[in-house]
Amino acid sequence: MSVIEDLTRSLGEAVVLTGDRIAERHRSDASLTGRSLPKAVLRPASVAEVAAALRICDGHRQSVVPQGGMTGLAGGANPAACDIVISMERLSGIEEIDAAAATMTVLAGTPLEVAQRAAEDAGFLLPIDLGARGSCQIGGNLATNAGGIRVIRNGVARDNVLGIEVVLADGTVVSSLNKMIKNNTGYDLRQFFIGSEGTLGIITRAVLRLRPLPAGRLTALCALDSYADVVALLKRAQRALSGLSAFEAMWESYFRFNCEAEGRQFFETSPAFAAIIEQDSRGQDGEREQFEAFLGQALEDGLIGDALVAQSEKEAQAFWRVREGHAMDRLLPSLVNLDLSLPIGDIGRFAEECGRALSARFPPAHVSFFGHVGDSNLHIAFSVPDAAQETAHQVDAIVYPLVAAYDGSISAEHGIGTLKRDFLDHSRSEAELDVMRRIKHALDPNGILNPGKVLR
Amino acid sequence: MSVIEDLTRSLGEAVVLTGDRIAERHRSDASLTGRSLPKAVLRPASVAEVAAALRICDGHRQSVVPQGGMTGLAGGANPAACDIVISMERLSGIEEIDAAAATMTVLAGTPLEVAQRAAEDAGFLLPIDLGARGSCQIGGNLATNAGGIRVIRNGVARDNVLGIEVVLADGTVVSSLNKMIKNNTGYDLRQFFIGSEGTLGIITRAVLRLRPLPAGRLTALCALDSYADVVALLKRAQRALSGLSAFEAMWESYFRFNCEAEGRQFFETSPAFAAIIEQDSRGQDGEREQFEAFLGQALEDGLIGDALVAQSEKEAQAFWRVREGHAMDRLLPSLVNLDLSLPIGDIGRFAEECGRALSARFPPAHVSFFGHVGDSNLHIAFSVPDAAQETAHQVDAIVYPLVAAYDGSISAEHGIGTLKRDFLDHSRSEAELDVMRRIKHALDPNGILNPGKVLR
Ligand SMILES: Cc1cc2nc3c(=O)[nH]c(=O)nc-3n(C[C@H](O)[C@H](O)[C@H](O)COP(=O)(O)OP(=O)(O)OC[C@H]3O[C@@H](n4cnc5c(N)ncnc54)[C@H](O)[C@@H]3O)c2cc1C
Ligand SMILES: Cc1cc2nc3c(=O)[nH]c(=O)nc-3n(C[C@H](O)[C@H](O)[C@H](O)COP(=O)(O)OP(=O)(O)OC[C@H]3O[C@@H](n4cnc5c(N)ncnc54)[C@H](O)[C@@H]3O)c2cc1C
Repeated sequence: MSVIEDLTRSLGEAVVLTGDRIAERHRSDASLTGRSLPKAVLRPASVAEVAAALRICDGHRQSVVPQGGMTGLAGGANPAACDIVISMERLSGIEEIDAAAATMTVLAGTPLEVAQRAAEDAGFLLPIDLGARGSCQIGGNLATNAGGIRVIRNGVARDNVLGIEVVLADGTVVSSLNKMIKNNTGYDLRQFFIGSEGTLGIITRAVLRLRPLPAGRLTALCALDSYADVVALLKRAQRALSGLSAFEAMWESYFRFNCEAEGRQFFETSPAFAAIIEQDSRGQDGEREQFEAFLGQALEDGLIGDALVAQSEKEAQAFWRVREGHAMDRLLPSLVNLDLSLPIGDIGRFAEECGRALSARFPPAHVSFFGHVGDSNLHIAFSVPDAAQETAHQVDAIVYPLVAAYDGSISAEHGIGTLKRDFLDHSRSEAELDVMRRIKHALDPNGILNPGKVLR
Repeated sequence: MSVIEDLTRSLGEAVVLTGDRIAERHRSDASLTGRSLPKAVLRPASVAEVAAALRICDGHRQSVVPQGGMTGLAGGANPAACDIVISMERLSGIEEIDAAAATMTVLAGTPLEVAQRAAEDAGFLLPIDLGARGSCQIGGNLATNAGGIRVIRNGVARDNVLGIEVVLADGTVVSSLNKMIKNNTGYDLRQFFIGSEGTLGIITRAVLRLRPLPAGRLTALCALDSYADVVALLKRAQRALSGLSAFEAMWESYFRFNCEAEGRQFFETSPAFAAIIEQDSRGQDGEREQFEAFLGQALEDGLIGDALVAQSEKEAQAFWRVREGHAMDRLLPSLVNLDLSLPIGDIGRFAEECGRALSARFPPAHVSFFGHVGDSNLHIAFSVPDAAQETAHQVDAIVYPLVAAYDGSISAEHGIGTLKRDFLDHSRSEAELDVMRRIKHALDPNGILNPGKVLR
């Protein structure tokens, strides 16, 4: 019996889609680099169905690609024509909010925004947050260990997970749905699967840690003269502002491009650097005054050239729109986004050197830098008119060796997938890669789970 | 050639101690349950020596027990007579403090307190902190994923590690000394080794994350009527107090015992519950007033019966002495300490039920409860006059099934070692244990690293 027949007999035609019943969206994640439709798409609606599907595929040595919300930017969810996709979209729902423990138990296919809203309705903050919130799923967020804009306060996805349930390649359900903050009973199994991009197991449930919902937010946009000032302001903010919840930096060309595109002029002249500082408020007296006093002192000390404090939610959103760079879409389809991590103190020098190298090779290119500097994360937006197919590779070949020279990382938050796989050795030694391969082999001996992703 | 000859030839007599040259302290960690001296103690002074030692031992299928500061409470560092100990004490020192990145690179044998002081001298806080700070080592803290008294603010040891270097059983050095907050380049290798109690590799270096040094601390001791009030106060403190850095609860018998022993009376009558609330201060105006206003409101709302705010460092220390329970030593040697994790909302009911069960079985026993309730962590102090050898096991046999019934964990922070190994299945399913065994086999195929610890 073929694997498709076996799956259909066990799971039914409603779960096993083939041929014309496979939708286009299963071809590629948001990197738009996926080319093929898979030979089948499975849509399990229960953990038992995920387990049955994997057991059968493992028996047939059939490769399987887990798909979440398909918002990934590393090609991790893209299938080859010979793969079977397991789409998590029907395994969705909030199973429990435990107010005393401040935890939420969700099925992995739940969209992030649905989980965020449910937390807010219960009076809590689910701190995982990113631009793709409407489409990405909790399972995808965990599988990629997503970062986002609140990391400086509450950490990456990994830091907000207390328990996890996974189905291994052979169909074994490993349920480790811990709700406790401390639990040292043997190896911490969560950690093996978070960030493994679907190569070690399929995540089916998670217990997420919730935080108190802030009463509001205070947001400022600052103009600065140098990267050294950006780092000094960050350090000062970390010391002085309890509840610092975001610290984002934009280099001149990025800030100018996006201000112009949005039709905004925040400062008289375009500053060398702009930074957004945000702090959670607790609805107590004097918070705004303290925040303004902090900025006033920085101004007096010459650390910042100017600062605007948002007087409304709407004004804060105007700052954020520039940072989120919605206008960058104008540079599509030739836009290349890089997602790097570098020691915070070195980011300024790196950006200069990297900008010079890219402009030398591609004189007419748009090259701009921005990022979650408080988390050591730098993004690069690169675009060149009439880009050739191989441009992205040429950019990688310029940037990644430089990242290696700075002891940086070629992926801060987007993961490796297929797009960065061949550069993984720029950030990892042979010994590290060997440990990864040993773990992969231990958990998926037949190599059926997302083959060719992360590791060759 | 015997393994000892092989080791001596390669490492020299200064590193390889046998016979009379083995000190008594290598027999047992702080649980005082170790009985044997090992057949040799190795004292490597470099990572290369650790690697050479492991390569030779692996070749001889010689079992190896890593020893840090020997302050563990689970028997994890105790050798059998046939084991060779690798003591980390000479692999000690701070290698770098990177102020811009806010990181510290240390050798694993560095005592925690030495690392804490170096951080403070550089203007930073190293948030890992526990009573054994003078003797325990960074490597031991990571190997046990230590908790301690600042977890509510900065997490467990795991949350404060950015990079790690480990020597595998076969002598391979895996250096993953990342300094960045975000790094999604393949599997997160730190996580495999943190909390693995020396069974997967020997930690030789770590990059620790530093935080801003608080300007000071505000500390209060509160009297409460019920466990429900304790949870309500915790939730309120988490919402209202930015910089909440500790929240500790003591049940009546624990608080009374320790107050009497210290010759202190804080409240007119002994309250059903006492809680310590502590918040980091940033040296700004109005912080103390806000802290006092928070307590005033809780008093007005009837959530607390009384509250004392420490007016000096000395007064704060008096509160902490009671919590740290130095007087409990009077109950030695029959003192049994249990370290449990339970969903926060259930801890009150659990303590009642558990206290009843223990008192029914051991009517004259001292049974008292206290713990890092903000981290879901409950400790039990148990002592019975003229305890028999098997008393500890009888206590375990009463408590651990109850923990399992409450979906709790038999170890919040001390780890499994040997002492809890046979109860691990009270907190872990067969599927979870099987994953652990697969990982163990993948990284230490000959099973030489700390055999019999954590897993059978
Ligand atoms: C507009 C936009 C903004 C973004 N902003 C950020 C950001 O700020 N920070 C950030 O980190 N990322 C960001 N991303 C990238 C992306 O949103 C994240 O990587 C997200 O976590 C992916 O979730 P997903 O459900 O869409 O996963 P998918 O794209 O479907 O899959 C991603 C990977 O996870 C695997 N996978 C998915 N579900 C499971 C599961 N249940 N079990 C096991 N493996 C699974 C897939 O096989 C694949 O390897 C952004 C993307 C877009 C389009
Ligand atoms: C007074 C007191 C208070 C304590 N308070 C706390 C507390 O609040 N929170 C808490 O979590 N614990 C506490 N403990 C327990 C203990 O201090 C911690 O577990 C500590 O982290 C152990 O460190 P160590 O260096 O002494 O390790 P050891 O006891 O020497 O070893 C512990 C385990 O780690 C392994 N190991 C040690 N070094 C390495 C290495 N370099 N590489 C690989 N494996 C290694 C050993 O094999 C063993 O399995 C306390 C203990 C005492 C005595």
